[in-house]
Amino acid sequence: MREFDLIRRLQDIITVPDARYGDGCVLGIGDDAAIFEMPGNLQMTACTDSLVEGVHFPAGASPAAIGHKALAVNLSDLAAMGAESAWFLLSLTLPRSDPGWLDSFARGVAELASETGILLAGGDVTSGPLNVCVTALGLVEPGRELRRSGAAPGDLVVVSGRPGAAAHALQVIASGGQPDARDLAALEFPRPRLRLGRALRGLATACIDVSDGLLADLGHVLEASGAGAELDLHRLPCPASMASMPERQRWPLQLSGGDDYELCFTLPPSDADRLGELAGAAGTELTVIGSITASAGLIVRGPGGALYDPPQTGYEHFGDDADGAG
Amino acid sequence: MREFDLIRRLQDIITVPDARYGDGCVLGIGDDAAIFEMPGNLQMTACTDSLVEGVHFPAGASPAAIGHKALAVNLSDLAAMGAESAWFLLSLTLPRSDPGWLDSFARGVAELASETGILLAGGDVTSGPLNVCVTALGLVEPGRELRRSGAAPGDLVVVSGRPGAAAHALQVIASGGQPDARDLAALEFPRPRLRLGRALRGLATACIDVSDGLLADLGHVLEASGAGAELDLHRLPCPASMASMPERQRWPLQLSGGDDYELCFTLPPSDADRLGELAGAAGTELTVIGSITASAGLIVRGPGGALYDPPQTGYEHFGDDADGAG
Repeated sequence: MREFDLIRRLQDIITVPDARYGDGCVLGIGDDAAIFEMPGNLQMTACTDSLVEGVHFPAGASPAAIGHKALAVNLSDLAAMGAESAWFLLSLTLPRSDPGWLDSFARGVAELASETGILLAGGDVTSGPLNVCVTALGLVEPGRELRRSGAAPGDLVVVSGRPGAAAHALQVIASGGQPDARDLAALEFPRPRLRLGRALRGLATACIDVSDGLLADLGHVLEASGAGAELDLHRLPCPASMASMPERQRWPLQLSGGDDYELCFTLPPSDADRLGELAGAAGTELTVIGSITASAGLIVRGPGGALYDPPQTGYEHFGDDADGAG
Repeated sequence: MREFDLIRRLQDIITVPDARYGDGCVLGIGDDAAIFEMPGNLQMTACTDSLVEGVHFPAGASPAAIGHKALAVNLSDLAAMGAESAWFLLSLTLPRSDPGWLDSFARGVAELASETGILLAGGDVTSGPLNVCVTALGLVEPGRELRRSGAAPGDLVVVSGRPGAAAHALQVIASGGQPDARDLAALEFPRPRLRLGRALRGLATACIDVSDGLLADLGHVLEASGAGAELDLHRLPCPASMASMPERQRWPLQLSGGDDYELCFTLPPSDADRLGELAGAAGTELTVIGSITASAGLIVRGPGGALYDPPQTGYEHFGDDADGAG
């Protein structure tokens, strides 16, 4: 049983048709964040993500990096909704009381919180195997949020930054090497694309953050939008550290490596001329890598327009245990 | 370094004086839940709590009990704020994909969600040591929430139910015995006192849920209110299973045992005659166990009015590691 089957199963069982404020939940499970209707002309977005040692960061990772990343991955979900980051809650499970570790962790959180103006409003601390669970709350005007479901045939598929750096760093570390400093920074200190998310409100037809891998996450957009897409690998911008890698080694990292926290969004072709202005406002490169098609499925084209079949689509938490133990 | 020192340290470091929506956070760290100002005449309350194997439930506990309790402890925080339970997020860390375990867990969550009309709005599932993090979102009208900080000298100290049952079950299990069925239910399937919390809006001057132990949690109310209290142990209502226990064995469990999730609140003496009506509306016993004093400190009186010195005040996550490892 895989991650998304597990989620669907939870969703099927934990269903409350007569929930008291059920109508107030405008968008529930299945996007980057939930949306709640609020009085006045406002909506709240909320998301929660846990970080686990050995899964989201290596054992012995710098506590500042862990703190930064725990907040960053949740801010990235708010960015993908086009929301303003407002408040967050922190639930911290620690194997032991270690003031030095805690201070460094807290400074990692604090630096990103200050930079993005988000306020720590509560949480809890408990003992147990290291686990950092952040819940981020954002605000966005009704109808201006970026959902996964609005991509239409002909829309351009755009990605921010240069996907693959985090996966490249992980690969180099796994083989005992010393990763490129910028790749390592992408892995340990990802920068959530909040400015880009804000700039895309009212423009992008769909948006998602690339946490599990470009193909897997674009796949979620296609499923939610009932559409397909065609990507052109030669348009995929390449991190500087990977420029001399053979394409057949580089592409799998760029297409299926997680942890980039770039945004992937769709834009009507009539807005193509706004990409330069958007990139300037967001402070990041924006690259058109393909387009949305009416027919379902994700087609990836490599050299000479030949079909490219990626070895895997993205990170799967329970991939080695597909049939379950129960 | 103890739990509350750790929290204070996090709070000190992760401080964002110029947070964009800082003013919108009406109440931050230090109560049962945070409160956010919302447009219209509404406030949102939010809390998050993680449950960890071996800490909040024994290894091998029933997955339905784990699911129930993960939601219950968060609903209990909303109850202590007097909030309506509206929505929740679930961040689940699982050691493996086990559909049987997951179904049973989800049914434990679903039963309590249905009963309390709260909607699952999102979350994530990741791999790692078992950890269940729930974030609960509630709603309450401005000025009607129950804080910890309003207890005034002369107020009555009231507790719901009969504290000690959960701690008694734990003690019996630890000694290899078979706990009383109702005590075990109190430990595994605590019932959050949402109806009581709602009934107390506009009446109680302060309120907290008893998660760490009656003395420890009342201590938080006293600290937040800048007051003291005097308790009379002979008024403390006793679970049926503990009726024949010697008082010197029973009192520590009742005063310092966690996991009861009863509410402890303060009420102006002029409202004492409303306790019967409140108990009826909430469907629980309510017992006056003492009163608030102007002088700081918590005085507990036993037989003949003699001072009673409890062996410990409450559950401490990092009690065995006070000086830290860093």
